[in-house]
Amino acid sequence: MGGRLSLAEPLQGGDRRALAKAITLIESTRADHREQADALLTALMPATGGALRLGISGVPGVGKSTFIEALGVFLLERGHRVAVLTIDPSSSVSGGAILGDKTRMEKLSMDTRAFIRPSPSGGTLGGVAEKTREALLLCEAAGFDVVIVETVGVGQSETAVAGMTDLYLLLQLPNAGDDLQAIKKGVMELADLVVINKADLDQAAAMRAQAQITSALRLLPTHAHATQRVMKVSALKSDGIEPVWAALTALRTEREASGAWGARRREQSLAWMWERIQSGLKQAFMAHPGVHAQLDITTAAVREGRTPASTAARQLLAAFQAGSVA
Amino acid sequence: MGGRLSLAEPLQGGDRRALAKAITLIESTRADHREQADALLTALMPATGGALRLGISGVPGVGKSTFIEALGVFLLERGHRVAVLTIDPSSSVSGGAILGDKTRMEKLSMDTRAFIRPSPSGGTLGGVAEKTREALLLCEAAGFDVVIVETVGVGQSETAVAGMTDLYLLLQLPNAGDDLQAIKKGVMELADLVVINKADLDQAAAMRAQAQITSALRLLPTHAHATQRVMKVSALKSDGIEPVWAALTALRTEREASGAWGARRREQSLAWMWERIQSGLKQAFMAHPGVHAQLDITTAAVREGRTPASTAARQLLAAFQAGSVA
Repeated sequence: MGGRLSLAEPLQGGDRRALAKAITLIESTRADHREQADALLTALMPATGGALRLGISGVPGVGKSTFIEALGVFLLERGHRVAVLTIDPSSSVSGGAILGDKTRMEKLSMDTRAFIRPSPSGGTLGGVAEKTREALLLCEAAGFDVVIVETVGVGQSETAVAGMTDLYLLLQLPNAGDDLQAIKKGVMELADLVVINKADLDQAAAMRAQAQITSALRLLPTHAHATQRVMKVSALKSDGIEPVWAALTALRTEREASGAWGARRREQSLAWMWERIQSGLKQAFMAHPGVHAQLDITTAAVREGRTPASTAARQLLAAFQAGSVA
Repeated sequence: MGGRLSLAEPLQGGDRRALAKAITLIESTRADHREQADALLTALMPATGGALRLGISGVPGVGKSTFIEALGVFLLERGHRVAVLTIDPSSSVSGGAILGDKTRMEKLSMDTRAFIRPSPSGGTLGGVAEKTREALLLCEAAGFDVVIVETVGVGQSETAVAGMTDLYLLLQLPNAGDDLQAIKKGVMELADLVVINKADLDQAAAMRAQAQITSALRLLPTHAHATQRVMKVSALKSDGIEPVWAALTALRTEREASGAWGARRREQSLAWMWERIQSGLKQAFMAHPGVHAQLDITTAAVREGRTPASTAARQLLAAFQAGSVA
């Protein structure tokens, strides 16, 4: 057990500096830090699970920051404590990103009842998502009862966000026709709520967008989320925020009553565990000297159609299992 | 090298019995058979790749067999040799399935220029798909220049079929509104061509379906397949088959010219190899005594929120790497 367990108490007391330090600890790649982080997380597990975990995404320019700021301030005024985490595998320098987040969510960042943390820098989406999942647990342990996980609309990251949150909200621009084209495969299906932002700029366009997206959703197969809705807001004027929150709260009540809320969390935890196992297995495989020695040649043979893919897989697996695991 | 390499010559000569035996060999789970199968496949690889690989799916009742029979007979009349493979992970008894296939595609099954093989019985979708992929290569080595891989519409299997074919055709019923609901997530996006069957039964409904599906496709994000089309046929009357074949051939010409045809095949082969590696790694992981001993307890702890998923994954991976690979 590492000395960082001393973070547990102030963190659970709601100390934002302790929370920030704990997140830095889980983001560290040092082996001893990782051990301390695991111990800290395990110690805090009983204190987690209390927040509404809300995923938000949308293409650049849709007004994500303005929307999150409006929703966040609305929630603070009603006595909630709000944390905002970001997933962006493309972010490389965390210093710059922090500055960016503080600038773009000015009121939230200055409020002591809120906590804003930018995307962990660098790494694969899987790695960034893992750190964000762990940060989410830490935020819950620190007493934040609404944790927003936002991501920029780049396809895979939306799936990661929907996979770690209770409700997933997709922001859209009023020019739906064009904008729908910009949504990557399957993202629309993930949405529990589609919110058209900047509805004040062109009311007619926003109405059309609402109708178009509603009918698109009806054509899509939505087995998992039969309750998809489309709403309009103007985040800049804080207009329409209350109905959005009411809709989210209604979904929560409905799903808690049906048991779907807890079931989704259990599935997410197990899926997360298996995803990390798969990723760890692939890492061990790639690092194995026997595999390493023949991977390039085998891959080329498969690409050129000289070796059947299944045969190649068996050969590489045999190489992996012949030696000890690296 | 196994004695079954003697199958290679008659198989390449187009002998359907040798082909059937070779497929039985690759379907066997015996280790010595597997070795012989790998040797046979590797020997035949230079003779593979020559067919148009066509995936076909649709919900039960859409008229898949009638459509494949009509298309198959059309192709035989034009000098093609047609093989039909089926993927159905739910099929348990292959004897029954063979009889079923022969009955439902009467003309094709009696023609010596055609070859029909039912789904490998039992197993996971991954296992069934692997055997079908290998059977497809064997059919190509036996000189079949159109290989149809069909599957019943059950979600995951469509993705498997689209992942092993050059072109993927989705059959639809004229009552599009209802039917679209029956399509699982993402299947519509996979389709290169959507064909509305039984168009003669209700021409007006078929027209509506065509318009509805066309606009649904336009709303869907279709980066990979910008050339999606919707056509109408009556397979029972062999009506509209020629335009469908012309559309498929046009897509092939276009993609061969752009290089997309070969690129898709190379991607499919590599994806297949990695899928088998992932699957093999998971098998080794599950069979490892150290993992086996603690998996249930750890899974329960994650499900109940006592252990963070990432910590659990690290513990299990440590157990796997501590001992030798089973």
